[in-house]
Amino acid sequence: MTDPHDAPPPPERPGLAELQLRLADFAAARNWQPYHTPKNLAAALSVEASELLEIFQWATPEESARVMDDPDTAHRVTDEVADVLAYLLQLCEVLGIDPLTALAAKIDRNERRFPAAEPPAGEEPPTG
Amino acid sequence: MTDPHDAPPPPERPGLAELQLRLADFAAARNWQPYHTPKNLAAALSVEASELLEIFQWATPEESARVMDDPDTAHRVTDEVADVLAYLLQLCEVLGIDPLTALAAKIDRNERRFPAAEPPAGEEPPTG
Amino acid sequence: MTDPHDAPPPPERPGLAELQLRLADFAAARNWQPYHTPKNLAAALSVEASELLEIFQWATPEESARVMDDPDTAHRVTDEVADVLAYLLQLCEVLGIDPLTALAAKIDRNERRFPAAEPPAGEEPPTG
Amino acid sequence: MTDPHDAPPPPERPGLAELQLRLADFAAARNWQPYHTPKNLAAALSVEASELLEIFQWATPEESARVMDDPDTAHRVTDEVADVLAYLLQLCEVLGIDPLTALAAKIDRNERRFPAAEPPAGEEPPTG
Repeated sequence: MTDPHDAPPPPERPGLAELQLRLADFAAARNWQPYHTPKNLAAALSVEASELLEIFQWATPEESARVMDDPDTAHRVTDEVADVLAYLLQLCEVLGIDPLTALAAKIDRNERRFPAAEPPAGEEPPTG
Repeated sequence: MTDPHDAPPPPERPGLAELQLRLADFAAARNWQPYHTPKNLAAALSVEASELLEIFQWATPEESARVMDDPDTAHRVTDEVADVLAYLLQLCEVLGIDPLTALAAKIDRNERRFPAAEPPAGEEPPTG
Repeated sequence: MTDPHDAPPPPERPGLAELQLRLADFAAARNWQPYHTPKNLAAALSVEASELLEIFQWATPEESARVMDDPDTAHRVTDEVADVLAYLLQLCEVLGIDPLTALAAKIDRNERRFPAAEPPAGEEPPTG
Repeated sequence: MTDPHDAPPPPERPGLAELQLRLADFAAARNWQPYHTPKNLAAALSVEASELLEIFQWATPEESARVMDDPDTAHRVTDEVADVLAYLLQLCEVLGIDPLTALAAKIDRNERRFPAAEPPAGEEPPTG
């Protein structure tokens, strides 16, 4: 029996796999799969990443750090983040790539490539 | 014959939150945070998305669908997917955005915006 | 005195240097130069190039070849081409680069790098 | 002592139309035209614009203004500018667009859209 004094359970955070499935169902229900070639999804991902960059293109570094202070801009940024993730997951779906495993392997490689012990003076972040 | 009881446990799939933490630790250990303004991370994300697109730029739709057949190209694609996800997660980290919640909300909105019941003839996928 | 039977002179095609000057005057008259750092102009150029790509992102190769048949799409493509050229010229202006000399030098290099005599089988176009 | 009368004539600056012709000949001599669909050229243009942005992605505004001081970086920037212009001209060629006329028309429109007389305070540059 549930004690009414208990706080309600937190809303469950959606999982990556669940969202990937929703995206696949969404595309299938609209017959959009023929559009979703890997090439087209890579182009769409790139276009969405640019729409995210567009929000920051004239901002100073300091202004860019305050971008979430304005509710409208915060919503726009969040929306573009979702678009980028949506196309990335759909691309991974059609290619059979597990993005989390891919990222874990990449971090492993970068940890060997850029040892933290070395003096980082003048070092630039990796660009891939 | 393999005894199913002897099978090793499947390797644990890394979680998104865990990877986000590893990325933050990685940047902190190398004093890279000053570079990681939202603007710079959005630019880096866009650059990595273009490096992914570059792999497909001269491919026909059919060739693009077979891109994982060649091991070297498959590795390159997987690596660029990891780079895109890495910068997306780091951008979300500095902006305080939960990418999974953002995507779930976006799918909700798109389901209202593009009802599946409508005839999809001639309909193009949403571009954000 | 002008003979009314004479055909009017054809409208003079604007030159690249003249357009570059107009763009500089335009930005100066609006006090936009502080925004026009090389970094910001490079970001804006990339964003505009993506807006051009967006027009083609779901098109088949054949559809993309017919993009100028629809007047509205033709106008949109032409407008994005102008935006890309505008930011490229403004970037060249602030960096002191002559884009035509840069391109001539690049073609020279590519002619040495990709000799036409060689069999082009399987060869892919250069990506820079 | 150099006799000023002996000075060689300055090297003739190549024209846009001439470079466009060289690019078309270059592609034809290598049988690359089948790759040069409008969609592929738009993707390649976008990829090259990102390679240009990559040079600036971690730079502060001040560092980005000094990018031509280092000869190697100056060469890299100039080379990427050439690549962007090359793909823009090739895209214009296959679509039958005159980029200079397109830009002149765009500046005309922007002059009406952003009158210089208005106080520019807080005004942001147009993003297309």
